[in-house]
Amino acid sequence: MDNALSFNLQCPIPIRDYPIVTLAHGGGGSLMGGLIEKMILPAFQNPLLAERHDGAVFDSHGRKMAFTTDSYVVRPLVFPGGDIGTMAINGTVNDLAMCGAKPLYLSVGFILEEGLSMETLWKIICSMSIAAGKAGVQIVTGDTKVVDKGKGDGLYINTAGVGALATERTISPAAVCPGDVILLSGDVGRHGVAIMAVREGLTFETTIQSDCAPLHETVLELLQAGIEVHCLRDLTRGGLASALVEIANTSRKEIRIDEKSVAVEDQVQGACELLGLDPLYVANEGRFAAFVAPQDADRALNILRKAPGGEKAARIGHVSEIPQPHVLMTSCIGALRVIDLLSGEQLPRIC
Amino acid sequence: MDNALSFNLQCPIPIRDYPIVTLAHGGGGSLMGGLIEKMILPAFQNPLLAERHDGAVFDSHGRKMAFTTDSYVVRPLVFPGGDIGTMAINGTVNDLAMCGAKPLYLSVGFILEEGLSMETLWKIICSMSIAAGKAGVQIVTGDTKVVDKGKGDGLYINTAGVGALATERTISPAAVCPGDVILLSGDVGRHGVAIMAVREGLTFETTIQSDCAPLHETVLELLQAGIEVHCLRDLTRGGLASALVEIANTSRKEIRIDEKSVAVEDQVQGACELLGLDPLYVANEGRFAAFVAPQDADRALNILRKAPGGEKAARIGHVSEIPQPHVLMTSCIGALRVIDLLSGEQLPRIC
Repeated sequence: MDNALSFNLQCPIPIRDYPIVTLAHGGGGSLMGGLIEKMILPAFQNPLLAERHDGAVFDSHGRKMAFTTDSYVVRPLVFPGGDIGTMAINGTVNDLAMCGAKPLYLSVGFILEEGLSMETLWKIICSMSIAAGKAGVQIVTGDTKVVDKGKGDGLYINTAGVGALATERTISPAAVCPGDVILLSGDVGRHGVAIMAVREGLTFETTIQSDCAPLHETVLELLQAGIEVHCLRDLTRGGLASALVEIANTSRKEIRIDEKSVAVEDQVQGACELLGLDPLYVANEGRFAAFVAPQDADRALNILRKAPGGEKAARIGHVSEIPQPHVLMTSCIGALRVIDLLSGEQLPRIC
Repeated sequence: MDNALSFNLQCPIPIRDYPIVTLAHGGGGSLMGGLIEKMILPAFQNPLLAERHDGAVFDSHGRKMAFTTDSYVVRPLVFPGGDIGTMAINGTVNDLAMCGAKPLYLSVGFILEEGLSMETLWKIICSMSIAAGKAGVQIVTGDTKVVDKGKGDGLYINTAGVGALATERTISPAAVCPGDVILLSGDVGRHGVAIMAVREGLTFETTIQSDCAPLHETVLELLQAGIEVHCLRDLTRGGLASALVEIANTSRKEIRIDEKSVAVEDQVQGACELLGLDPLYVANEGRFAAFVAPQDADRALNILRKAPGGEKAARIGHVSEIPQPHVLMTSCIGALRVIDLLSGEQLPRIC
């Protein structure tokens, strides 16, 4: 493996511009993109990683398997609609689903901070067990580390997952085609707003709940119905906008969407205005975008609308013929606007 | 999955005895054992997890795959003989090797602390790339999170790994048989002492280097030579002693070892005496114990001795006919001593 030794040992991010890691480097925006593109991809280069998808797909004796990982550092640990444990299961289940895979096995790595209440730990372990049961996955291997007080924040959880591909088709940004219809599986912004409301001590008429949920059953339904799915992406850090920009960049295609087709619940919209957030960039934990062949769009939308949380699923845009890697949005007032990555994340430690 | 909802929601560890998580809960000793046995295994129960091995083995279309994870929280980040990046690759490669698997694909999850120097991050990414190249594994998927300053310690790394089993035989504590010969792949204690020397500012005539190294090639050689291997275990947190106690407990067998057959380098022994450590409990990152059928022990030992770092490999004991789950050691002065788990770890955050 020559690549291991042949890359330049000088740090590829100019030290005078970015001498240290900042919170924005973890926000799913352009700074994080730079870190991944300039440092991580060149150092670890291989074709599977270069796909830049939610997980890697590899071949095992003719059976395609998906493999993915995520660490969870959300603050607070418990929030309306879930906790870090629910997220750690559903998040990794969803990354496998976005590869078109049926999730099978999960690993769990706990990093506990000295002083964490044993009852909190137990509550979160129970949430993970319940979430794993609901998603039909088994937690088969794990690791527990404890760090000194003041060197963590209660607990961090990493999960990795392995799944079996449920389709022969390649589902990835590279498979996006001109003409693809972009479907959104529900309304956006709930997770980020639920977390921010707790952090800022905001109260609303009814509590805004995170949308945290497993998505694999809906994805498997799309595949079983023979929908020609080209790309799937769950809309976590950086929200819908960042996900679309990443797909446009990786696929080198122009994406056009229509703002008024993107459902945002009234209370979520109100909270976003109060907090100065753009709901398009707010993280979700139970929503995804699907790029499907135009002839299958109506059937796919019907499936999405029948899924839990999918009442507001909608056709939000398409991939154009123009080979320009950018996202254009027709705003509610009819203006055409370029959607770009934020430099960081509006909401640090949202997942 | 009924188990998800049927376990008792009351915390199984008595809150009045252990209201909070302590550093010792992550030390690989009896407190950590309690956490795993009372909380994690019952909540996540399934047959693969119940094996309590370094990784889980699952069947994929007739091909057996191994899956494992570890988080790395070692302090300091860089030490003689390696850094957290080298460890994060080799540690997971070794856990796969201990299942009898050829390591193939790794995931990487970074948890970076705001303020980490970009150059340090780059150095560690380079170490990972080099270590992955040497071990012949590909890093195919990953995740990066950033936490606020004061909520981490520079960086933590989780890696998970997938490998393909290189044998039809089940290699696990459950496969241990009376009469098995226990081989040790080299001298012990280097990694823990190297770390402690840096932390305590100790200097020796020559610098004690961590033994951090990938072990899969040696394991694959044993398997290719047709050695009847029953169990393998790398001797990380808790060292040789804890690994043997865990295997005795899981296999419900008596293990007998001979202290004078366990090689400890003079400088390591001296440092242990100075620091009040027992080298049998000190972590290693490039040593393992192999339980092999008696008729194959000599051939296996020859293979171990020819491997890098294996000059001091030795036959250190055997599994007796007595179905008692404990470890007995004939000490250097001839006394018989019961080896038990420490409550925590002599050296917190050693890996």
